[in-house]
Amino acid sequence: MDQHYSSELFEHAVDEFSKLPGIGRRSALRLVLHVLRMDAGAVESFADAVVRLRRDVRYCKVCHNISDTEVCNICGNPLRDRTMVCVVENIQDVMAIEATGQYRGLYHVLGGVISPIDGLGPSDLEIQSLVDRVAAGGVSEVILALSSTMEGDTTNFYISRRLSSFDGLRLTVLARGLSVNDELQYTDEVTLGRSIVNRVDFSMGM
Amino acid sequence: MDQHYSSELFEHAVDEFSKLPGIGRRSALRLVLHVLRMDAGAVESFADAVVRLRRDVRYCKVCHNISDTEVCNICGNPLRDRTMVCVVENIQDVMAIEATGQYRGLYHVLGGVISPIDGLGPSDLEIQSLVDRVAAGGVSEVILALSSTMEGDTTNFYISRRLSSFDGLRLTVLARGLSVNDELQYTDEVTLGRSIVNRVDFSMGM
Repeated sequence: MDQHYSSELFEHAVDEFSKLPGIGRRSALRLVLHVLRMDAGAVESFADAVVRLRRDVRYCKVCHNISDTEVCNICGNPLRDRTMVCVVENIQDVMAIEATGQYRGLYHVLGGVISPIDGLGPSDLEIQSLVDRVAAGGVSEVILALSSTMEGDTTNFYISRRLSSFDGLRLTVLARGLSVNDELQYTDEVTLGRSIVNRVDFSMGM
Repeated sequence: MDQHYSSELFEHAVDEFSKLPGIGRRSALRLVLHVLRMDAGAVESFADAVVRLRRDVRYCKVCHNISDTEVCNICGNPLRDRTMVCVVENIQDVMAIEATGQYRGLYHVLGGVISPIDGLGPSDLEIQSLVDRVAAGGVSEVILALSSTMEGDTTNFYISRRLSSFDGLRLTVLARGLSVNDELQYTDEVTLGRSIVNRVDFSMGM
């Protein structure tokens, strides 16, 4: 659709919005028309938030989660359980687990999983820094919370080997099984199979 | 969902994106994660396009369409037919008609329609400037391309009264009828009724 608007500023703004993921030409047009009706100050504060996010956001030097400061506010929170480290692939995973409100330990963001096809080896990920954290002491459990894909499993295995020398360190993975409210008959057989094999005592599973 | 992110910059950017129409919390999160991965220069140019749009866009002093200059590039285009003026409600309508590629005349953007409920009277719209344009001479046809709502019809009527003193001025409205490819049986009766009453000669309608 090679539309010609009467304003290049307008056209350029539509182009810029269209570059964002999930925003087509039509949505971009609607957003630009909205911007035209917005308060000038609100537009500046929107643009400023976007620029500052990209320019000023940092990555926590302990867990590599996004942060505004050298150490993120999860690692810096004295109320969090510092003996547990949950290993995740990316910052979205941290958000997902935080949103459950069920975990009070710390995190370690790998920045991906081992994937030879994508040219991602152990040295491209924050694995050495995880080993160093455990070696520094104080960590009694590492929770491996990676996707259950071949790459995730490979990464789990690699990390477990790297951490095997630490006596008394507990290594755990997330429980896999039926979703809460899942109906048995509609669950895929791999998940159902795992949930039978890894069944838990009645009182625990409630 | 009162989520607590590990970065206020991040949270603030999500908030700002969420304020845009049609963008929920989830889409805002996805956009912000995308911004984090974008090239810093691309982020600046996005923000700059948005700010410049709001700050620098102007409205054509002839037709009141958006423009980068005092007179928009439709009014300023010597190839357009200056004897025809198409009256529309807003700039989206100009875009919609331009997108058809079927109209080579000029426009006049009213900025709304007469709507007593919304407190919009003739003096709030660009009606006097339309009368002045016609009075200045050179216009032989005014096309009323407003919505067929009560407000649109009222505005059409008001404009037709204001322009009635110009002898020889042709006043037209958009043809209403079945959409191209519409199936007769699924067309609403008002549209179908109008398209029977306003039927055209076989050769014209093709």
